[in-house]
Amino acid sequence: MSRIDLNADLGEGFGAWRLGDDEAMLDVVTSANLACGFHAGDPATLLRTCHAAAARGIRIGAQVGYRDLAGFGRRFIDISAEDLYADVVYQIGALNALARTVGSAVTYVKPHGALYNTIIHHGVQADAVARAVRDVNADFPVLTLPHGVFGDRARELGLRVVTEAFADRAYHDDGTLVPRSEPGAVLHDPAAVAARIPALSQTAESICVHGDSPDAVTIAQAVHAALTANGIELAPFV
Amino acid sequence: MSRIDLNADLGEGFGAWRLGDDEAMLDVVTSANLACGFHAGDPATLLRTCHAAAARGIRIGAQVGYRDLAGFGRRFIDISAEDLYADVVYQIGALNALARTVGSAVTYVKPHGALYNTIIHHGVQADAVARAVRDVNADFPVLTLPHGVFGDRARELGLRVVTEAFADRAYHDDGTLVPRSEPGAVLHDPAAVAARIPALSQTAESICVHGDSPDAVTIAQAVHAALTANGIELAPFV
Amino acid sequence: MSRIDLNADLGEGFGAWRLGDDEAMLDVVTSANLACGFHAGDPATLLRTCHAAAARGIRIGAQVGYRDLAGFGRRFIDISAEDLYADVVYQIGALNALARTVGSAVTYVKPHGALYNTIIHHGVQADAVARAVRDVNADFPVLTLPHGVFGDRARELGLRVVTEAFADRAYHDDGTLVPRSEPGAVLHDPAAVAARIPALSQTAESICVHGDSPDAVTIAQAVHAALTANGIELAPFV
Amino acid sequence: MSRIDLNADLGEGFGAWRLGDDEAMLDVVTSANLACGFHAGDPATLLRTCHAAAARGIRIGAQVGYRDLAGFGRRFIDISAEDLYADVVYQIGALNALARTVGSAVTYVKPHGALYNTIIHHGVQADAVARAVRDVNADFPVLTLPHGVFGDRARELGLRVVTEAFADRAYHDDGTLVPRSEPGAVLHDPAAVAARIPALSQTAESICVHGDSPDAVTIAQAVHAALTANGIELAPFV
Repeated sequence: MSRIDLNADLGEGFGAWRLGDDEAMLDVVTSANLACGFHAGDPATLLRTCHAAAARGIRIGAQVGYRDLAGFGRRFIDISAEDLYADVVYQIGALNALARTVGSAVTYVKPHGALYNTIIHHGVQADAVARAVRDVNADFPVLTLPHGVFGDRARELGLRVVTEAFADRAYHDDGTLVPRSEPGAVLHDPAAVAARIPALSQTAESICVHGDSPDAVTIAQAVHAALTANGIELAPFV
Repeated sequence: MSRIDLNADLGEGFGAWRLGDDEAMLDVVTSANLACGFHAGDPATLLRTCHAAAARGIRIGAQVGYRDLAGFGRRFIDISAEDLYADVVYQIGALNALARTVGSAVTYVKPHGALYNTIIHHGVQADAVARAVRDVNADFPVLTLPHGVFGDRARELGLRVVTEAFADRAYHDDGTLVPRSEPGAVLHDPAAVAARIPALSQTAESICVHGDSPDAVTIAQAVHAALTANGIELAPFV
Repeated sequence: MSRIDLNADLGEGFGAWRLGDDEAMLDVVTSANLACGFHAGDPATLLRTCHAAAARGIRIGAQVGYRDLAGFGRRFIDISAEDLYADVVYQIGALNALARTVGSAVTYVKPHGALYNTIIHHGVQADAVARAVRDVNADFPVLTLPHGVFGDRARELGLRVVTEAFADRAYHDDGTLVPRSEPGAVLHDPAAVAARIPALSQTAESICVHGDSPDAVTIAQAVHAALTANGIELAPFV
Repeated sequence: MSRIDLNADLGEGFGAWRLGDDEAMLDVVTSANLACGFHAGDPATLLRTCHAAAARGIRIGAQVGYRDLAGFGRRFIDISAEDLYADVVYQIGALNALARTVGSAVTYVKPHGALYNTIIHHGVQADAVARAVRDVNADFPVLTLPHGVFGDRARELGLRVVTEAFADRAYHDDGTLVPRSEPGAVLHDPAAVAARIPALSQTAESICVHGDSPDAVTIAQAVHAALTANGIELAPFV
């Protein structure tokens, strides 16, 4: 029986603002990518989400992003390698300290939004992120697309690279994601998403479902059901 | 021969903005309280300061503050215990991760500015800060005034409390600091500061010199000279 | 036939984060208090809300607050008069420029959250806010509780003071609001809220309904219906 | 006798952080570009600088930038036209309100840093900035390089375009600025800067001197002297 991981971006509220239903998503996923405060996630929100994840035995990853609350980390920033390296180290360390107070810990890293997309092709930023992860903890796997300079650079530095596919995002033919600014970038029909799952799950070690759309929980449950129906076991990546 | 620690607040720039001469101060002090990003200190600035401290063998403390860049952490914020606890954990963890990339680590905590002053008397906030420090690392000493609820609460939680005196700040008769908003709150004459040092050093385990005033290095050197002249050895607190 | 104004706090999202259904609320209220970016409201969100208000002929007020996105402006900040004065001028001017691009303009000011509550009793901050409003436009009315130093100071400076009552907030016997941190501070039952309206509408020139709770639109509609049922006409204050 | 304007970026501190000697620069320049809070400039700092400019009869321009305090507005951000338009309107309106409280007003606009450089070639962002300026006040001139899409678009929208040359910045052969990240981008020798002035002043209607370097005042005075020595009168652009 084949196995696959299911990950989602959580902890993405900020102060009075909520985004998505973290508790419901934590009942479905096997890996929780928590924001780290730079694109979303004030410390108290993160701590509550760490607690909810830990209570379910769901492991926590650091979802590091550009410092851009107003843009939710979805805007490319032409940041220097020096600044980006330090920003990534800072974010991982901050989240890890929160996770440890509830008996958990950060165990992997997944870049967020524009940073995620940028380092698929931007060598300088990819290198800065990979070095930052390695220098915090060389045992941390990183999640990324199957092809791209970030994965390449991470492997060169000795990091474990976990490849992922997006359940509800449209792809270009070259395997890159269709940007959110383009129509059809995000699929909203649970049945359509579920139909892609068997094929998608052949291409990656983890499936990403989004936690921040109104239909997020429904989509995640559809993905979960589609995996089970196809005899694919949900289990955290190793 | 008696011994005393000399500490200063460093790493308090932000991006393009610099504050004080961290390198020169690091040549004088025995403990470096580094900002953690909430009142000052972007990650790249903090990383450079961590590096400069580590290169001199000067140990690093986390100078946690209110989230208030515009107010430099010098304005009381009526924050809830839940939020303050998480903010303090977040800041310590972030700085610690940066420090570890240069082979150092956070080894103690000193609250900054309005937070420092508030928790001398504000039980709820004092408790939140003390619990946060303990939950990050119960072995971290905390720096505070000889009397106050923060020190009391920290001791109750089993934390080591290191008392400090301010070389260049005026005191009220009850041992609290004259607020910066009042005239005469900060002494600027190196000779006047030096003259207080022998008496001050009887009252505390560490002397704090400020790093952010134009005459900071001169004052710090005068304090250093006054300690030596009085046969008091500079050494990190234990 | 008596008349009363109905106001609500709108434009309180930030970037990807939404709060409340501004469009639905704008169909009920007669005055729209828009956030100004310091406690909520990024410029693009504010511009969209200005547009929606202008399209309905609903006038726009500046809902000025403390600079505290993480705390949503609900935490007291011990800010100096000099800083607060400038912060208030800045916020009103910023919102006014946005409103003018859609053919509207700011026409009144209502402080938000902790600032609103603080200046009921804090003379220095009350004076700073009142002077800021007067110096931006001495013709701007200000909304506040029937009693308090802000209203007093505003009247001394020649400003028009519009008194308001909160449809869904509990009051202390002295007419101040029960803080949100206390249980029962906010009423959630539309029928209970509606029942208070006839009496409340005798005490003030405007009724405030909240825009940020899940039941906000239902509550606002209940207030609207209760006013109409009691023969009270909804009309903007003059 | 020919005439030229001399402009500088001022008001670029933030809270406790200072940058440059605004008072000394205001004694030399004829136009003061004040930051607007997004890349630098808290409201109280801006108000003080407005006051200092107004006291000398120096007119005030809005130096609008990307929302990026940590990067001082020097990092390109891939912001949408909708967000950028609103950000620019917001910033101009905020500064204008501050300026008006001291009897002055914003009279022109000059984009800052990475935004300045980006809109020389980025059509979408250039258009957003130009429309924002026009919608705030179609009589506001904009400062930009002699060639570029921002100037073109601004002229199409009916705005007055004032061309400027940088006294202390190196140029590529195509008339664009050498980025600050490259060596030799900024000239620091007052004599070398002065020697370029006669030729530079033939190419533009305004000369920009920087206000944020340690030698800023010396450079500005050298430029001032070089202009006078060459029989070029300093006067605000019309």
